[in-house]
Amino acid sequence: MRDPRRDPPAAKVAPKAVVGRVSLYLRQLEHFERQGRTTVSSSQLGESLSINNAQVRKDLAFFGQFGYPGVGYRIEELIAALRHILGIDHEWPLALVGLGNLGRALLKYRGFRSRGFHIVALFDNDPEKVGQTFDGLTVEPLEALRKTVSVRMVRLAALSVPAEAAQRVADQLVTCGIHGILNFAPVTLSVPSGVSVVAVDLSVQLEHLAYKVQNTQGGISYAG
Amino acid sequence: MRDPRRDPPAAKVAPKAVVGRVSLYLRQLEHFERQGRTTVSSSQLGESLSINNAQVRKDLAFFGQFGYPGVGYRIEELIAALRHILGIDHEWPLALVGLGNLGRALLKYRGFRSRGFHIVALFDNDPEKVGQTFDGLTVEPLEALRKTVSVRMVRLAALSVPAEAAQRVADQLVTCGIHGILNFAPVTLSVPSGVSVVAVDLSVQLEHLAYKVQNTQGGISYAG
Repeated sequence: MRDPRRDPPAAKVAPKAVVGRVSLYLRQLEHFERQGRTTVSSSQLGESLSINNAQVRKDLAFFGQFGYPGVGYRIEELIAALRHILGIDHEWPLALVGLGNLGRALLKYRGFRSRGFHIVALFDNDPEKVGQTFDGLTVEPLEALRKTVSVRMVRLAALSVPAEAAQRVADQLVTCGIHGILNFAPVTLSVPSGVSVVAVDLSVQLEHLAYKVQNTQGGISYAG
Repeated sequence: MRDPRRDPPAAKVAPKAVVGRVSLYLRQLEHFERQGRTTVSSSQLGESLSINNAQVRKDLAFFGQFGYPGVGYRIEELIAALRHILGIDHEWPLALVGLGNLGRALLKYRGFRSRGFHIVALFDNDPEKVGQTFDGLTVEPLEALRKTVSVRMVRLAALSVPAEAAQRVADQLVTCGIHGILNFAPVTLSVPSGVSVVAVDLSVQLEHLAYKVQNTQGGISYAG
């Protein structure tokens, strides 16, 4: 039977902004759980994230009905539901492609592992990097991609290669069975339907910061 | 006099999602300009970004009226307007705080400089890092923050310190006159009103990728 508290009301894919906020709700709920709380209202959940309660309710309603009248949300239950929705109720083996400065930084980035994303394979085209070991993993040449992806059941890859190589390497990743690419190269990748790309362009985020600083009225005020 | 093609219709701050898309429109327009094109329609502008023309028009209308009937957008004019809106029609000196793996990767990230963000000062608390030189810049201790920020007219900082130090360092940044923080630490920063924070949480982006891969119907299909 269909469980309205777990199954989404429709099979449509949520917009990026909604999924991003669900990730933030999940972090806040985990914070409340560590504090020993068991229930939370939509206002309390949104408060520390500066998201109003109507938006919180609308975002969550996209995926199902989770609230209880007079109770709010049961934290443990909502955490499990959101982890299931995001697909992080299981671990994801991850390939890291490109061991330049950014790649090596990503390799040590604790945020991936703590959310269930485990880097299990490293690839680079540079003969000086192939064979080197970082954090217990040996860098393989791209020719080894197909076999390693298959043996290690890798479906996601973080791509941190130079812009001019990104599309060519992305094509190789797709051919070798990668279904999702986290793209750090500052180019728009073209991939077949059925393959997902999430682009990380840090300069877009800096532009957003510049916009906010420029449009903040009245300079700095130290609100109590 | 008010120029409706340059001045926004209202003084409200655009939502994050709109500003993010404006950054993408700007990149696409610059691409068209390099190809020698002079005008573009909203459909053409949105096409390669998978954003429909109504959304493109609505996003741009937030900031003013830019289109010409029967012509579309004049590319050179719209580029200038969007760069002015985003606040990147001038350069931003940037302080980089935290010279760990991620900080050193950010230092070499070409995307910042190409958008007018110039890293002009490096700070770290680690005595082993202070005094070291990276890319021609010498790492200073946090005690030097106030003077350097003032002398170099720095208003933005990229914060790549460990999570447990982030709030304390952010407080120092604010006290020393920083107006905007690009936060790479996986914690939510609390800052006074008048100070802007844009959080970069890479695990949120990976969760979005996992969600998309999980919800892509029918596996991989190689569309024409």
